[in-house]
This record gives sequence, C-alpha cells and structure tokens, in this order.
Amino acid sequence: MRLIVIGAGIVGSAAAYSAATLGANVTLVDAAHTGRATSAGAGIVSPWGSRVDDPEWYTLACSAARAYPALVEALGEAGETSLGYRRVGSLTLVESPHEQQELSRKFRSRLAEWPEMGEVAELDSDQAQELFPPLRPGILAVHVSGGARVDGRLISAALRRAAGRAGARVVAGQAELKVAGGKVTGVTVGGELIEGDAVIAATGAWTDAFVEPAGVTLGITPQRGQITHISLGLTDTSRWPAVLPGGSGHYLLAFDDSRVVVGATRENDAGLDYRVTSGGLAEVLDNALAVAPGLSAGTYLETRVGFRPMGPGFRPVLGKVPGTDGLIAATGLGASGLTMGPYSGELAARTALGLDLPLDLSPFSPAGTDMSSR
Amino acid sequence: MRLIVIGAGIVGSAAAYSAATLGANVTLVDAAHTGRATSAGAGIVSPWGSRVDDPEWYTLACSAARAYPALVEALGEAGETSLGYRRVGSLTLVESPHEQQELSRKFRSRLAEWPEMGEVAELDSDQAQELFPPLRPGILAVHVSGGARVDGRLISAALRRAAGRAGARVVAGQAELKVAGGKVTGVTVGGELIEGDAVIAATGAWTDAFVEPAGVTLGITPQRGQITHISLGLTDTSRWPAVLPGGSGHYLLAFDDSRVVVGATRENDAGLDYRVTSGGLAEVLDNALAVAPGLSAGTYLETRVGFRPMGPGFRPVLGKVPGTDGLIAATGLGASGLTMGPYSGELAARTALGLDLPLDLSPFSPAGTDMSSR
Amino acid sequence: MRLIVIGAGIVGSAAAYSAATLGANVTLVDAAHTGRATSAGAGIVSPWGSRVDDPEWYTLACSAARAYPALVEALGEAGETSLGYRRVGSLTLVESPHEQQELSRKFRSRLAEWPEMGEVAELDSDQAQELFPPLRPGILAVHVSGGARVDGRLISAALRRAAGRAGARVVAGQAELKVAGGKVTGVTVGGELIEGDAVIAATGAWTDAFVEPAGVTLGITPQRGQITHISLGLTDTSRWPAVLPGGSGHYLLAFDDSRVVVGATRENDAGLDYRVTSGGLAEVLDNALAVAPGLSAGTYLETRVGFRPMGPGFRPVLGKVPGTDGLIAATGLGASGLTMGPYSGELAARTALGLDLPLDLSPFSPAGTDMSSR
Amino acid sequence: MRLIVIGAGIVGSAAAYSAATLGANVTLVDAAHTGRATSAGAGIVSPWGSRVDDPEWYTLACSAARAYPALVEALGEAGETSLGYRRVGSLTLVESPHEQQELSRKFRSRLAEWPEMGEVAELDSDQAQELFPPLRPGILAVHVSGGARVDGRLISAALRRAAGRAGARVVAGQAELKVAGGKVTGVTVGGELIEGDAVIAATGAWTDAFVEPAGVTLGITPQRGQITHISLGLTDTSRWPAVLPGGSGHYLLAFDDSRVVVGATRENDAGLDYRVTSGGLAEVLDNALAVAPGLSAGTYLETRVGFRPMGPGFRPVLGKVPGTDGLIAATGLGASGLTMGPYSGELAARTALGLDLPLDLSPFSPAGTDMSSR
Repeated sequence: MRLIVIGAGIVGSAAAYSAATLGANVTLVDAAHTGRATSAGAGIVSPWGSRVDDPEWYTLACSAARAYPALVEALGEAGETSLGYRRVGSLTLVESPHEQQELSRKFRSRLAEWPEMGEVAELDSDQAQELFPPLRPGILAVHVSGGARVDGRLISAALRRAAGRAGARVVAGQAELKVAGGKVTGVTVGGELIEGDAVIAATGAWTDAFVEPAGVTLGITPQRGQITHISLGLTDTSRWPAVLPGGSGHYLLAFDDSRVVVGATRENDAGLDYRVTSGGLAEVLDNALAVAPGLSAGTYLETRVGFRPMGPGFRPVLGKVPGTDGLIAATGLGASGLTMGPYSGELAARTALGLDLPLDLSPFSPAGTDMSSR
Repeated sequence: MRLIVIGAGIVGSAAAYSAATLGANVTLVDAAHTGRATSAGAGIVSPWGSRVDDPEWYTLACSAARAYPALVEALGEAGETSLGYRRVGSLTLVESPHEQQELSRKFRSRLAEWPEMGEVAELDSDQAQELFPPLRPGILAVHVSGGARVDGRLISAALRRAAGRAGARVVAGQAELKVAGGKVTGVTVGGELIEGDAVIAATGAWTDAFVEPAGVTLGITPQRGQITHISLGLTDTSRWPAVLPGGSGHYLLAFDDSRVVVGATRENDAGLDYRVTSGGLAEVLDNALAVAPGLSAGTYLETRVGFRPMGPGFRPVLGKVPGTDGLIAATGLGASGLTMGPYSGELAARTALGLDLPLDLSPFSPAGTDMSSR
Repeated sequence: MRLIVIGAGIVGSAAAYSAATLGANVTLVDAAHTGRATSAGAGIVSPWGSRVDDPEWYTLACSAARAYPALVEALGEAGETSLGYRRVGSLTLVESPHEQQELSRKFRSRLAEWPEMGEVAELDSDQAQELFPPLRPGILAVHVSGGARVDGRLISAALRRAAGRAGARVVAGQAELKVAGGKVTGVTVGGELIEGDAVIAATGAWTDAFVEPAGVTLGITPQRGQITHISLGLTDTSRWPAVLPGGSGHYLLAFDDSRVVVGATRENDAGLDYRVTSGGLAEVLDNALAVAPGLSAGTYLETRVGFRPMGPGFRPVLGKVPGTDGLIAATGLGASGLTMGPYSGELAARTALGLDLPLDLSPFSPAGTDMSSR
Repeated sequence: MRLIVIGAGIVGSAAAYSAATLGANVTLVDAAHTGRATSAGAGIVSPWGSRVDDPEWYTLACSAARAYPALVEALGEAGETSLGYRRVGSLTLVESPHEQQELSRKFRSRLAEWPEMGEVAELDSDQAQELFPPLRPGILAVHVSGGARVDGRLISAALRRAAGRAGARVVAGQAELKVAGGKVTGVTVGGELIEGDAVIAATGAWTDAFVEPAGVTLGITPQRGQITHISLGLTDTSRWPAVLPGGSGHYLLAFDDSRVVVGATRENDAGLDYRVTSGGLAEVLDNALAVAPGLSAGTYLETRVGFRPMGPGFRPVLGKVPGTDGLIAATGLGASGLTMGPYSGELAARTALGLDLPLDLSPFSPAGTDMSSR
C-alpha cells in the first residue's frame, strides 16, 4: 500500500506517523504554506465543557482527547519528549455562582463517560488566582484536572520525525493531485510524479485548491485567527492551567518558557490574508487583559496568523471523498485542530489502509459537491 | 572654541549643526543608546493649541515651531531633503460644538502673535473625515493649517550630516565628563581624551548619569513612551493632518509611506525598561481605534519604545549648569522633543559660544542640585 | 481612455504616473507580492560602462538614465522629495592600470553621445578610498561623476502618490485579465470587474501567470537576488559613490542613513523561493568584503530577496502583446529595473495612449508565444 | 542557610537548583542582560577530544560531561523533559588518515578513565556523510558515540523551574552586592535589600562589575561569539551528531527542529558590543560551508550574539573569593559553558553550603586582585 499524505500540519503528520507504524509505504508532502493553522493554534486539549451543541462533534473531540496520553507515551518511547505537552488542567471562567454550579453539574454529568477529564472542582476567586496568578480578582471558575496543552509545532515535528524513522519519506513542495478513471494515481511535486494507491488530503485551508483535479469541492474555507504571545520573564508558568473565559471564544494558555498565548480572533471573511491587523491585535489584547490584567506588564513577543480550515456547518471533514477512489479528506477541524488533529490523522490513515475504525465517521463524510454544477 | 556635544538625538544633532555652521570646532559624541526619545517620538509640530498652562513653555514651543521652516530650507540647500517634514496641518478633535467654538476662539486669540499656525477652521464630521479618512463619523474638529510633521530619525541624521560637512566630527562611544577646578575640560570616550572648552549635555534620559562627575544632579527622569506603527498598504497618507484627540495625550500621525503612527503611553515609573508591554500596546491601540476605527484593518508593523527626558516640573532644562563652567544642559523636552529639539539645540549652541539669544532662557535654567547634599 | 496598470513596482507606478499626468483615466492594481524586484533592488543609475553587449539595450538604459533628473525635478515640484535619489557618482573597480585605461577610454568614447555621465576620472587607490573609505587599499578605479542612486521603494511610492493626486485610482488585490474577442476588456479584482480600454502588465516575475487568459506566454522567468543591508552607525555615507567591482556582477551602494547595500546573487533556477539562504548570504558578504574589508565591522541589518523578471535573451519586454488588442507588456528589466523602470513605465504609458515614442521599441517587442502550441 | 545566586544563566540556574534541592533557602536574582553566553552557546557536550592542554581543565570538563545524564534524569522525574538534550554522538573532522589514527588513539587512551565517551570509530567519508549529510565529500572523521547536545536556554529554564518547585525564589532585577566587615550581607535589587549568608556570583561577563563592592577584581573579560542558526526545512536533523571541524574552533550542531547551529566567532576585543557584524557573519558562514556545503540551500534564520566570560589564562573561576567571606565566584567557563555549567553550578552550591566536593577546585580558585592596587 503506497500512501501519500499531503500537508505536514498536525493532521497530516499524525496520519503519516500512524500509517508508517501500521506498515504502509508512506510519502508525506508539504508545501510550507505560511499561515498553517497548526503553527498558530494555541493547543488546549480540554473539550469536555464545550458549548458546541453537536453530539457527534463532541464524541470525536473527547475521543481525541482520550487518545492523547497514549500517543505522548509512544512518542516518548520513540525518543520524542519535546512536545510542549503537559496535563495542566483547565479553568473555565464563569460570571456567577449559579453559572458555576450549572457548569460543574454539566461536567460531572459527562464524567462517567469521559473520566479523562479528571477532578471537577468549583473554585473561588482566590483559588483560581492561585492557579493562574494574572487573573482579575473576583472571578469564579470551574477547574477540570484532566485538561492538557500541547505545542502544535513541536508535536507535528515529532510526529514527522517518528514517521520518518518508521520509514516514511518527507518531500518538500507543492503537490498536484493526479486522478485517472475516477481513481487517484498519485501526485506530482515540482514536475515529478509520485505514484500512490491512496492520497490523504490533510491540506487545511488549501484543501479545495488541492482536490480540484478530482472535480469536487469540499467547501473548506479559511477562518483567520490572530494569536498573541506574551512573555512573563522569569515567572514559572509551566504548571498554569488553560483558561477558558467562556463566551468570547478567547482563551489564555501558558507554556513552559514563561510564555502565555492569548487569543484568538475568528475572522471568517478575511480570506488568506497573512497580516496582523491593528484591530485584530487590539481585540486579542483587550479580551486577555479583561480577564487577566496581571498580564499587562508582560512583554509583547509576537502575533501569529493562522487559517483554520472550516468545513460546511463548522464540522470536520473526515473520510473518503465520494466519486474519487483512493482520495481521503482529513481537515475542517476549525479551532479544535490541536485537540482533534492527531486522532483525526490516525482515523484517516486507518481509512486509507482499509482498517477498522474505532468511531463512526459517517457524520463527517465529505460532501464533495460536484464542480461541474458550478 | 572647541565644543563637545554629547548625544546625537535631535537636540544634540541640532546643536552640533548650529555650532559648526557658526564656526565652532565641534565634536559630537553618541553612545547609541537603545530607547532614545528621538527615535520613538511621533513628530507633530503644532504647539499652538496646547493645554500646557505655562506661558514660558508655550513661548519656547511656538518659537521652535516658527523656526522650523527656515531650518528645513537651510537643510534642503545643503542637499538634505529627506526629513519626513511636511506642513500637513493638524486636527484637534473635540467633543461638542461648544468645545469646538472655545478651542477655535483660543487658537484665533493667539493667531496675531503666532501667525505660523495659519488658517483656523471649524470642521464638521464629514470635513474632518475627508482630511483623515479613518476617523469615526460624528467627530468635530478644529483644523489649523500651519501644523507640520517631521520624522525624528531622518531630521537628526540630516542635521548630523550637515554638521559633518560644516566640519563637525562625529564620534561613536560612551562619553565620560571631565571636570577640573569647577570647569569642564572635555570628555573621555573609550579611554581617549577629547579636550573642549564647553560641553553640551544633550543626553536625554541619561543626563544625570552623564553630569555626575560635575557633582550635580539635574533631576531628569525617563518617561517611557510606547508608540505603534500601522501600515495602510497603498493608501496615500502623505497629506493627512496630525490628529490630536484632546485630553488623552494620545495622537495619530501619518507619514508619506502609508504609515500611521499612533500613541503614545506616558509611563513615569517604568524606568529604562525597553520592553513593549501587552498593557502598553493595548492602551495605544485602544486609544487610536476609539477615534479612528478605520485603522482597524491596517497592518500592525511595530511598536517602538522611547524614554522622554522629563525635567523637574515637566519643564525643559536648557542653559548653563551652575557651579561648572562650560557645562550646558539641553534636555528635558518631554513629549515635545521633536517640536522643540532643533531650536533648543540651536539655543544651546549659541549659549555655549557666548552669542546673543533670541529668547530668555532663565525659566529653563538647570537647577543643578548639589549632590553632596544627597 | 481607461487605462489599467497591473503591478505597483517601479515600472507600473511610473506608467500610472505618466498616464495620469497625460490625462488618462488610470487604475493601478497591485497584489502586494512578496519578493517584488523593486523592493530588493539596489538602485544604481549608472549604465554607461555596462559590459552588456547589446546596443539596443544600451540605448534604452542610457536614455532611461538621461530621463531621471527631469523626473526627480517633476516629483519634487509635486512635493515628493524623499526618493533616496542623489547624484553620487560611480566607481568601477579595475584590476590593473591597463584595464583602467581601457575602461576610461570606453567611457570617454561614449561621452559625446551621453554627456550625462559627467566627468570621467582615473583614480588611484588613495583617491578611490577617499570617496569610498571601506575599500581595500591598492584598488584602482574609474570614476564617473554622473552616476546616481535611488531607493526603489521610495520612488515607487512617490510615483504612486503623484499619480493619485493626478487622478489615478489605486486598488489593492490580485488582478485577473479579461479578454474577449482578441481584445482586453479589463480585469477583475476580488471578483469585481474593472473595465478598461488598455491594460499594462507591469507584473514582473508574475507576468506569465497574469497574461495566461490572453492565451500567450512571454517567457518571463524569475531570477532570485539576495541583497544585504549593512549599517555603519554614525558614518555619513550619503555622498559615497556606487561601487561596481567589475566582473562579479556584485556591487556596493551607500544611502543617506549610514546604510550600505551589497549584493546581489543572480540565481536563475531558484524559482519564486522567498528564503534567504546561507549560501546566498555567504556569497554576498564574501564578494562585498573582498573589495571593501572596511565594512567588516558594520552591523548586519537584513537581507532582502527579490525576483528580477528576465525576458527571453535577458532583454526587456516592452510593447504591445501580439494577438491581444490593448494588452501592453512592460517588464523583463532584469537587474536594471531601477535604472530603466521609470522610463520604461513612461514608454508603456505612451504606447497604451497611442502617443509618439522617443525611442524605437521594436527590439523589445513581446514575442508572445501562443500557448496552444505548448 | 540563606543563599543568594546572581545570574540565571546555566551556571546560576544550576546552582540555585542544586542548593534548593540540598535544602538551602535560595534566592535567584537575574538582570536579564542581553548577550548572555547561555543563550548564544551551541550546546555540545563532548569534551574528550579537546585540544586544550590543561589537565585540570580537562578533568573538570569530563567530570561535567559525566554528570549530565543523571541531571537529565532527575529533571525528567521533576517533569522537565524539554531540554534539547540528546546523546547524538560527535564527529571530529580530520585532514588525513594519519591524523585520524592519532586522534582515535588519543580518544581510546582516555576511554578507560572516561568511559562515557562510548564507542570510538574511524569513519570514512561516506560513513561521516551518512551521519551528517551536508558534509563535503572526502572528509574523514573520528566518531565518539557518547557525545551529547543540549539547548542552553531550555535547560536553564528547566533548572530554574525545578529550583522554584524546590522552594527557590526567583527575582528579576539588577543586584548590587552588599559587603560589611569583610563579609557579604546580601544584595539589593531595585533598592530592596535581600539578606543572605552567602552569594554566588554566576554573573558571567558582568562579574567584575558585580564584585566591585567587595573591592576585588577577578579579571573576567567578555569574548564575543556570533553564532548562526540555519533551518533545513523538513529534514529530520534530530539524530545528527555534533561536528567539530578541528583547528578552527568552529562547529556545527543540529537540533530536533531541523535547525543547524554553526559558529562561532571568538572575538576577544569587541567588549560588550551586541551587534551582528558583517565580518563576523561572513566568518561563521564561510567556516560552516567549507566543511558542510550541503547547508548552502538552508534557510538563514538568525545570528545570536553572546559574551563568553573568560577568566585569567582562559581558566574557569570557581570557588571562594579571597578576602570576602561568603562570596563565591562561578564563571569564566569560556566556550565550554554549556558543558561545564550545570556541574560548576552544583560545585558552587556545595561550596556555599560547606559540603564536600567531588573535585579539587583549587586550580580554579579566584585570584581576586585587590582593587586598591589599581
């Protein structure tokens, strides 16, 4: 089985790693696009309290979170320990004692099915601030001990290296899909043909351009996110929990190196526009400082821009593309790419190799609108 | 007359230029400090509507503005045309028709004495937006046609080059003041002695450290300013007026290269801390976008940090330092350094050379607290 | 006459300026490509000693140099004085007295026809070093006083602003050419149609992609250039001549702001690869330091990457594209874009407007290979 | 025992960690100097083949290398796995088969005493290139399997975090040493007194300024190093060995993230000059490309500048400072700071706490020239 994976973000890197360890002959191709979502994501792995009202999405997200520890352990055994991964817990901020009770009840009602979320605790303002000192006094929170965080760039690179040592080949360049007789035959990269029996399109916001030779469109659009990195100097932030302020969709996430990542914007109409805008930056900073004024004296480091691939109805697009044998799509993870990416990559690899799946992917099946109707 | 000028910011560069063209034997020494106020200033030359309630300050500022056009012309004749200087007018934003009338009355009452301010006009929201398109609709303004802007880095460099061609020597390094018998004898730079009959300390926020060998302190403290540069792509911003939103102390200033500079913070307790902070950046962006939401889609370029030298009582410190013959201070211009700098440098040069002054400098006379009392 | 100019590099900006001042209804469209040749060029305007053995190329280049002073003056009258332009002379380095004599004879033989080159002088090592102090001792040179330099970014922006004030409209976005019945009808930008009677493709290395809807290819390929900026601190470099070391194709060029630009690589097979490479950087620095070791202690500032558009046979491509009415190409200027750009833009504008040309452009006529034969 | 450690580079961070785990009450103070040697070092831990002809230096270096694995394990148990540490082996390049034999003999003669160096192997050109693909063909090498590498920034931060969790307090600011009656009493930071029974000066190139209040000078001078980072895109460089080209003092070191670090200059007369110079950069690139031309197409990322603290006779300065009770110096590690730093920090901590030492430090005893004799 010759499998070609396009896109070395977290999904594609995981797909290549899974397939290679499962014995496939894997080629991973990457075009080094600026604005890859993986590089600009935050990295919170704590889906249990999500407000997304979509049971299938929820099951995929929680299953992905469940799969993380085993992946981290396997990578560690392969000598890859720099993933930025740590089980730091997460703090969901609430506005009132009432909301706090409701939220913790919601968490606990899901605990039996998803025990990985760990302990659920209602924290008063002092307790919350003890865990995340820059918080504004007076904020209540619900703490979930099983939340984790990961550095998207680091884990993608580690997956690629592990894939490489398991036999995968990594090729730099822009891939063009080759289809003949309703079946993928491979890709060309820089004019050179790479033959394959299956192709996984882990191509993020660039997916529709990639699958165009198959005559379909999957309706993946870019959602721009601007995300800011702040340094707190010598402060040890390595054990700080992820902070989810609730409704805004903005969050705060600390890493080992005294860095706190805050953001992000969710810009649906910006297209592939790589700029940091003054309005986007102001939005990100204002949201962060509103809940964590203690970050105010932190050093502004940089703002990254990423394009989250959004599928139709904001759902992942994961599975065989109808009408073209051998073409599998694995994208559309939106703002949850670093949570769901490794697991989605594994599912895509298993799909390509014809193996059993631990989860029904039919809710995420690519719609594949025929382009001849356009 | 051997004159040594310390500090190649706008004041020192102007002093060296003036003195060299007046025939002195000039050495200009510069330590290339990060955070020089000149590099981080905006560059608005429009002091007539200032709220500063200090007649002597006002006279100095307006005299300095009056002197600009002749300086620009002289530099142009010396082949220096890249100064970022342009007479673009200034817009002071007001909150109500009443405030607008009061302000324009204030301007007009000063027009006879300071005709350089040009035409004074009360603009409605549409007229204001026509001049500065990113403005929020509904804002009234008073326009003064004589306002100008200048790029601090460019004009300083031009003054230095012109000084050099008039015979001044420019030396890079940290200068140490030499005093003997109550008189300056020169400075050492990198261990090497440069002898001089007079020394002008145009040393900004680093002044008290420099004059320490004279046994005095002048009470100059750094006020940190963070200032942000935004690009508007291909928009021609070259004729946009300076925008002074009134009370906040924040402003917006456009340059030829589609760049709008917004800011700045006024941080009196930050010391010489070179960092861009998340709180400072948020303050700057929030103030700018509140009056000019049209900047929101502009590209964030960079934020600069500068240390404005603040004298006692926020007054300039300009003149002979008591107790040490031959030592002249020229600093403390605060947030008005790019307005008052060239003129202050010229006055310092004339003071050093013993020439008549067009203005009584006694209100700005360095106090020179004896350090032995500390 | 509705004229659309695509590409706001130096050629397109000049075309828009010329056409607007000639009375056309001009729209200038720009896609803000990274790697535009204009931004990464050096800016030497001193073609008279060129080794290029192509009389028609030589005539175009020298005519373009001749046209510069009038353009600079016209822009100055339009209030645009920041062009980085200065007539600093140029130094061509030679290996031997014999070579020096031959070269100065060559210059002088052309002096009657091209008096703009000014004085031709044979300089010994000391004289050369006096003009350009970092030079290695022992190097002979031929000095031509009429050489000038210009900052490509600054003059392009000034041309755009002046075009705008003459009525041109500037639009940001990727333009797609519209052709119907063998005639251009306009372009679309972001889905919106801009109608036009003629379109000038000043599209540099992106030309063949742009003209594809016309069914032709012009054979323009990108030549990557890496060029390094070095700062000399407080040194006044504003009057230093351009330095042309001869055979290597590398050069050194100083600007007003104590900056010396050195380079550049000429990489024909790199494609549109935006990276600074370690090998390219080493090549640039080694070439510069070999002739000017005095730059060794200068501060490394940055390296820019640009893609010079190279036409077939390394010739400019300038004129009407055969087979498509109303389509004019103005590109292919290679390493001489900042010398020939403004003049080429003007010629393209006159061609589009049907005006007389001061120069026969037939040697540069676009070949326009029909793509159906590919 | 209240111990104050000044300097949070690798030495000070290790001293704080060791002392805190040994039960001391530790305060670590750091001034966040730009140009810290730790941030700009490469990170090769492979001292066995050193040309340094100084048995005591050699014993210290090899003992430090021996201590690394246990430290890495202890940090891993403390949850700190991101150190950039990996036992990748090292390749010493040689010029001839004869030199290769001599060198491998030298390694093997030391193997009994220092078995950590692992396997010693003579590699032909193909074998060397297989381990480090960018190498120039035709180069012979001696491979030592026990060589390791580490990221100085990462391990310092991990040591600081582990110290903090063991009870150490970390304070940001410039420390001023307080001495009374021939004994250290503590330090002030930002005007605030921190009392202590002992002070470890892990102050690198800033040591002599720090110990000045003790009336001594230790003769530590800065050696500037410029070091360049090159990216190889998607190439898995995580297992590439350190490359030591021999005589030049330059080296090449790959990290997990497809980054190769090459350098560095050894500039003894540059002082604390933070600039990247064109000459320094050319030296670094030329040395790297001479032995590894395969790096030529790699992306230039950045050049870092660090100041290696050099002690008198290029020896470490490690132990009690004579004449001032409670003052311990731990610096002067020169180009071997990342090899010897953690162990030196531990030795300094044990010295401060009055514990037994596993090594005689008298050869590195601070000389402590009395400043009154200056």
